Amino acid sequence: MIPTVIGRGHLIDTDRLSKEEMEELFGRAEYWRTHRQHWHRAYPGHFAANLFFEPSTRTRISFEVAEKKLGMEVLHLDGETSSVVKGESFYDTCRTLSSIGVDVAVVRHRGTGLLAEMAEKETGVTLINAGEGNGGHPTQALLDLFTLRRHFGTLAGLTVVIAGDLLHSRVARSNLWALSAFGARVILSGPDSMRDPSMEEFAPYLPFDEAIRQADAVMMLRVQLERHERELFTSAEDYLNRHGLTSDRLAIMPPHAIIMHPAPVNRGVEIESGLVEHPRSKIFEQMENGVWVRMAILERALQGRNN
Amino acid sequence: MIPTVIGRGHLIDTDRLSKEEMEELFGRAEYWRTHRQHWHRAYPGHFAANLFFEPSTRTRISFEVAEKKLGMEVLHLDGETSSVVKGESFYDTCRTLSSIGVDVAVVRHRGTGLLAEMAEKETGVTLINAGEGNGGHPTQALLDLFTLRRHFGTLAGLTVVIAGDLLHSRVARSNLWALSAFGARVILSGPDSMRDPSMEEFAPYLPFDEAIRQADAVMMLRVQLERHERELFTSAEDYLNRHGLTSDRLAIMPPHAIIMHPAPVNRGVEIESGLVEHPRSKIFEQMENGVWVRMAILERALQGRNN
Amino acid sequence: MIPTVIGRGHLIDTDRLSKEEMEELFGRAEYWRTHRQHWHRAYPGHFAANLFFEPSTRTRISFEVAEKKLGMEVLHLDGETSSVVKGESFYDTCRTLSSIGVDVAVVRHRGTGLLAEMAEKETGVTLINAGEGNGGHPTQALLDLFTLRRHFGTLAGLTVVIAGDLLHSRVARSNLWALSAFGARVILSGPDSMRDPSMEEFAPYLPFDEAIRQADAVMMLRVQLERHERELFTSAEDYLNRHGLTSDRLAIMPPHAIIMHPAPVNRGVEIESGLVEHPRSKIFEQMENGVWVRMAILERALQGRNN
Repeated sequence: MIPTVIGRGHLIDTDRLSKEEMEELFGRAEYWRTHRQHWHRAYPGHFAANLFFEPSTRTRISFEVAEKKLGMEVLHLDGETSSVVKGESFYDTCRTLSSIGVDVAVVRHRGTGLLAEMAEKETGVTLINAGEGNGGHPTQALLDLFTLRRHFGTLAGLTVVIAGDLLHSRVARSNLWALSAFGARVILSGPDSMRDPSMEEFAPYLPFDEAIRQADAVMMLRVQLERHERELFTSAEDYLNRHGLTSDRLAIMPPHAIIMHPAPVNRGVEIESGLVEHPRSKIFEQMENGVWVRMAILERALQGRNN
Repeated sequence: MIPTVIGRGHLIDTDRLSKEEMEELFGRAEYWRTHRQHWHRAYPGHFAANLFFEPSTRTRISFEVAEKKLGMEVLHLDGETSSVVKGESFYDTCRTLSSIGVDVAVVRHRGTGLLAEMAEKETGVTLINAGEGNGGHPTQALLDLFTLRRHFGTLAGLTVVIAGDLLHSRVARSNLWALSAFGARVILSGPDSMRDPSMEEFAPYLPFDEAIRQADAVMMLRVQLERHERELFTSAEDYLNRHGLTSDRLAIMPPHAIIMHPAPVNRGVEIESGLVEHPRSKIFEQMENGVWVRMAILERALQGRNN
Repeated sequence: MIPTVIGRGHLIDTDRLSKEEMEELFGRAEYWRTHRQHWHRAYPGHFAANLFFEPSTRTRISFEVAEKKLGMEVLHLDGETSSVVKGESFYDTCRTLSSIGVDVAVVRHRGTGLLAEMAEKETGVTLINAGEGNGGHPTQALLDLFTLRRHFGTLAGLTVVIAGDLLHSRVARSNLWALSAFGARVILSGPDSMRDPSMEEFAPYLPFDEAIRQADAVMMLRVQLERHERELFTSAEDYLNRHGLTSDRLAIMPPHAIIMHPAPVNRGVEIESGLVEHPRSKIFEQMENGVWVRMAILERALQGRNN
């Protein structure tokens, strides 16, 4: 959690960004949100390659929209098999991309630590982490913070409950580092079977009903249905009643507290379907903000190359 | 078949378009056909998402060319599994697309009625039907009518034979509604096992040799080889001789009558191979016209959003 | 090997290009390499379709970058099954592409002779061979020659060793024709089990250690691991020691001789890993040059259409 600025505009995870760097990204995201007429001619002739070795429609198209709004050209390598994602061959892939003129590679993959390793080598391509293993998902965390900051005006002093499948969440960890850097208070919650002891060194764990009474924002995590053995929970209804965000639970949250979720939502599992578009839900606003924040991150990557 | 104009530029099927709306589309298609130098800068910064949950290379690339000729940015979601195409999750997909800045979604899928249902909700994305279940394929019908109108100068009074696999055709139904709206006379024909009684309420069924003697245009349908059990027909040669368009049958058609087919053609099944590029065949002209008509439809979708 | 200029800008293989045509391509490739500010607005409104019926990430993205740097619009049909790649249906595919406005089709497929056959028909689309069967891979050969010419200033009189899996290489054959046209001397080498007698009519075969002592450039071929039965070689280490390029072998090459490889490299199989980025290796420069040469080839295809 020691902020370490690494050069050339790579985005590995939020624990490597200083508060000042994140502030700068939020400023540029706000610029792109409010200056739509400047789109599209900002970075012509620059190439992004999207390498999605794990499927993720939403993150992929959010990046693609951000790239195209900046006027960048976009290549896809999502047809690749995961066999490519090994140290040596991934190094060769990066060198190849750089040789043919790719500036930025946006990478999602199952492994952990590969991007940090690669960023230290001189492959010539700037790397952006679009979700890595169970480890990190920094662009999601940054769009979450941008959404919180736009709503509350500040991040310092906010209490944010991160609740649900902490063990398999990429999002929770990146949010924890970033929120902590801004002096927000994180409370973890979720089923016992999904707790992650390594995160509890940095933030308290509380029972759900206790946690949400203190929340300015409740960030529900997606239950990774496909990653769980059946025994983890008996039914969607049972999970919702015991661990999900319901109207009853909304009623005990402070009246100003907002609902967040990284999407895609499992309606009726971690959140009651009717709450997804509740006036206090920011879920679709988060998606919109994802584009502005990713434009800022791509811009930082391109400018890191020119320095 | 009651023309019902639905707002915001959605294109669900031809039975929801008035004759006047179709005329306007043909006018714009003719504009794009003849003003090629205006391409490419018409709608910059607008995003189309192509959601092809069923494979269809030809329709997909025809739309993609139309989108790019209008200067639009194009996203693909064809990697999605068909599990996404259920009411609730498709609603969330549309809301997501809208949140990240997509203007128009071009959708092909196996179900029926999903697009009509979604058009009534306020998802924020304008929908274009690129082939839905066995139900409708309005852009194909509109390009067929555009081709007929360019050739004959008018649609009123024409006799159009639609022949072949009526039961599994998306095209036949959309053409029937559209041709009827313009006062053209439709005759249905095809093997007994492929008749569709629900269409015969609106157009007569005649034996093939009798039908084509009266035709101004014969629209052959593709035999959906992959959808038929073997017993439906014994061999390609047998099908061609009994139900296909052959040189012998061309000889009994009126000398001015033209050949049409939505493609891809099964050469030697529903049409003799040598007739595909016969001087009286409009098959490749139909493909070309598909681009102009789809440009007009996309333009209508974008303008529907601005009103 | 008789140079036969075929019209309309098709690129079938190097044996159909005259030395003068290749010189012209190299001149244009050099132009694109050195005039980067002219990119991107050269051929707007022109459409390329990339039809990769066999996977080839590197060649596909190299073409895609070249197309986009020329300002062309790019369609992908790589989702197609190989069943499409038969004479008649491929003809219909080309006619369809032409009808919807595609100018150039870049095709990789498993068969042999299909592109030459199709180029003779008037499909309306200009064809570029991006790797065909075991037969030819002319764009790779042209980028190899461009790299040699940039390094040595000339091609005439050079001795080029092409070594490795000659039997399954698309690259070897296209390079042999092109190098011979320029008066370079080709020496073939490789394991006995991978020799190709049909090439030895045109160039001598020598044992590896003997061949490389005479080389100005050693072009290592990729072992197509997936195409070989296990018995062809017992282990990667064994192959490297007996037939691969090692530091020991580099020491007996002339001190000015360079290392080339079409990539992707099997590190530790046909080449010692440490040699890939050796100062005398041109492997990543070849990749970069691939973009400039493909821009020249695409430009030739587009200009062939306008004549």
